[in-house]
Amino acid sequence: MSKGRLEAFSDGVIAVAITLLVLDLTVPEPTSHEVRAHGLAFALGHMWPSYFAYVTSFLTIGIIWINHHAMIGRLRQPDHMILSLNLLLLMSIAALPFATNLMATYLREAHGETLAAAIYGGAFLAMSTAFVAVNFHTLYRKRHLLAVAMSDARRRQIITRGLFGLAPYTVATALSVVSPYLTIGICFAIAGYYALPIASGGDQ
Amino acid sequence: MSKGRLEAFSDGVIAVAITLLVLDLTVPEPTSHEVRAHGLAFALGHMWPSYFAYVTSFLTIGIIWINHHAMIGRLRQPDHMILSLNLLLLMSIAALPFATNLMATYLREAHGETLAAAIYGGAFLAMSTAFVAVNFHTLYRKRHLLAVAMSDARRRQIITRGLFGLAPYTVATALSVVSPYLTIGICFAIAGYYALPIASGGDQ
Amino acid sequence: MSKGRLEAFSDGVIAVAITLLVLDLTVPEPTSHEVRAHGLAFALGHMWPSYFAYVTSFLTIGIIWINHHAMIGRLRQPDHMILSLNLLLLMSIAALPFATNLMATYLREAHGETLAAAIYGGAFLAMSTAFVAVNFHTLYRKRHLLAVAMSDARRRQIITRGLFGLAPYTVATALSVVSPYLTIGICFAIAGYYALPIASGGDQ
Amino acid sequence: MSKGRLEAFSDGVIAVAITLLVLDLTVPEPTSHEVRAHGLAFALGHMWPSYFAYVTSFLTIGIIWINHHAMIGRLRQPDHMILSLNLLLLMSIAALPFATNLMATYLREAHGETLAAAIYGGAFLAMSTAFVAVNFHTLYRKRHLLAVAMSDARRRQIITRGLFGLAPYTVATALSVVSPYLTIGICFAIAGYYALPIASGGDQ
Repeated sequence: MSKGRLEAFSDGVIAVAITLLVLDLTVPEPTSHEVRAHGLAFALGHMWPSYFAYVTSFLTIGIIWINHHAMIGRLRQPDHMILSLNLLLLMSIAALPFATNLMATYLREAHGETLAAAIYGGAFLAMSTAFVAVNFHTLYRKRHLLAVAMSDARRRQIITRGLFGLAPYTVATALSVVSPYLTIGICFAIAGYYALPIASGGDQ
Repeated sequence: MSKGRLEAFSDGVIAVAITLLVLDLTVPEPTSHEVRAHGLAFALGHMWPSYFAYVTSFLTIGIIWINHHAMIGRLRQPDHMILSLNLLLLMSIAALPFATNLMATYLREAHGETLAAAIYGGAFLAMSTAFVAVNFHTLYRKRHLLAVAMSDARRRQIITRGLFGLAPYTVATALSVVSPYLTIGICFAIAGYYALPIASGGDQ
Repeated sequence: MSKGRLEAFSDGVIAVAITLLVLDLTVPEPTSHEVRAHGLAFALGHMWPSYFAYVTSFLTIGIIWINHHAMIGRLRQPDHMILSLNLLLLMSIAALPFATNLMATYLREAHGETLAAAIYGGAFLAMSTAFVAVNFHTLYRKRHLLAVAMSDARRRQIITRGLFGLAPYTVATALSVVSPYLTIGICFAIAGYYALPIASGGDQ
Repeated sequence: MSKGRLEAFSDGVIAVAITLLVLDLTVPEPTSHEVRAHGLAFALGHMWPSYFAYVTSFLTIGIIWINHHAMIGRLRQPDHMILSLNLLLLMSIAALPFATNLMATYLREAHGETLAAAIYGGAFLAMSTAFVAVNFHTLYRKRHLLAVAMSDARRRQIITRGLFGLAPYTVATALSVVSPYLTIGICFAIAGYYALPIASGGDQ
């Protein structure tokens, strides 16, 4: 298995998952009570958690895609363990449209919104953890698979950054018990921070 | 990040988004009142805004894809800002199946059709604006990223063309208050104009 | 626009369209009258037009994909007209999951089945016509775009084969007025014929 | 047809099919009796067969993808028969989201669960059989298409492994009459075994 094919397949799964997010935006039924009583504008406005969750998830998957290339780019060749861990990472990315839909559906409900937010934050946390696991395996366990020699300090820096990146998602997930808005707000802020060019110094 | 990978991922998202448009074409329910009372031909005929919106959106995304390659083709290498702006562009393209479905659903309704048309035109406007933003950044802010030297006149011409391309979508969006048919008619005309070989002289 | 990128994008659209066909296979509702009264086996058996249409459409799109590569492979470089015609071809391919679903839904109904079959055959006819149009433009109008010199006899042979390939779909569409089963039967036979290695002598 | 294009198209179909599995995870309706009476946590917990089937199908398709590359990698160039057999293989992979959904839907029902499990196991068996068929054709019928010379012993070993791989799916399908949990349990165990690095000695 060449790393080119690994990248192409991963790109394919990530491109499909990021585009399937649009299926979570459902058109309000013209014959529904809400549209008939309050109009389309009201019904669309009422869907705001869906837009918010769409943008947050889209940017987050986009950033993971950018980081994924940096990670694969460091490899000379993948081994079976990297293929397996990468499959787990793709599985967690492919599940995000479900977590996004769950979050958007329950954010405007009076019940279940805490659990939905915890699952949403938890899904991002799981994805980030899978990412750190692939990175860790690459950098520490299988150094000979790296394309170029890398200092211990640089290796440590990349892993530390990755572990550090888990912290905000852990906080976002935990704060769902306070408010689901906090969870999605933090996830949105993380996506915005990494998507902005400010964060472009290093390993994004 | 090589520009090859940027192209491949963008192609993937655009190919998925353009194909997901077909999900907006829903088969009339055989047991529905409309099919039982008036027959399948009537029910399918009644869906004409869906076909119209499908063709318009398909051609528009197809043209954006062609233009996208011209734009990336001029780059030597993308920087983080281009990746971020490109992600916003892809996000606006991936949202088009939703805007298309909304337009098609409400065009035959007696309420909400103005707003749906404004959102449809606005979605194309947002996509075009994101496109101009990536182009502007590439040509003016980061000249050293260009693959070949380019005269100031040529640069100005490309940007002017891009800005000029925003005008019809602005008009189409504004005219939704007059008639939603005007909005979709103009959007269809734009797609037809660029898809025809007449327009092939320059930067499409 | 290189022909490599044209191929990659076309492959993407065709791969998504062929895989979206599975969405036409819907799981019978456990609480439906049919499943409760007659059991899951009966309900799944009742869906046989869906499986038949799934296989027919899958093989047909697969064959179009193989032919598409032969066509693009002959090109040295695409021009704008080829890009536009190819976009129309992709639009007709991307619409096939809708026509397939329509056919499968109405084949077991007592009304609308003739129209559904005509549309199914007509969709394959439209796709084949778009294919011949791209081929014709490539071979006759823009010879200088060909990768290798080609004799007039060989050119004529390819076009004749393509036009000849329209005949069975025309027949299949016309015979929908006799029986929708004839339409889908002929479409299935065409797919089977081209997918079998017997047909591999020439341009498939 | 180059083997590169065959790989790219197959990758595309597999990437779309693996990501479409997420559509089988449906968000519980907030207004449903189950969510209102027992809460979201209960409703999500009640969906456990969906998660189990999602993970099992995702890993299985992922492993088939890895094996597919090993198979294509041995080829020098595909012939028409390989294209046709590969199309059948892709058709069986693309159908897995349907079989997965069927299994997940009926595993918690008191009727139809045996048939659903038999179809689920049977779908994996069909996919594996198609895989062995392509491999067999490549290794025995068309040796001259191989990229490198291969001993008879090695050829026999690969085919034996493939045939041996059919056994657990045959058992899993047959045991559906005892319990559907046995079927999905065995399918999950197979996926886990191959995804683990233990199995990485040979042809995965």
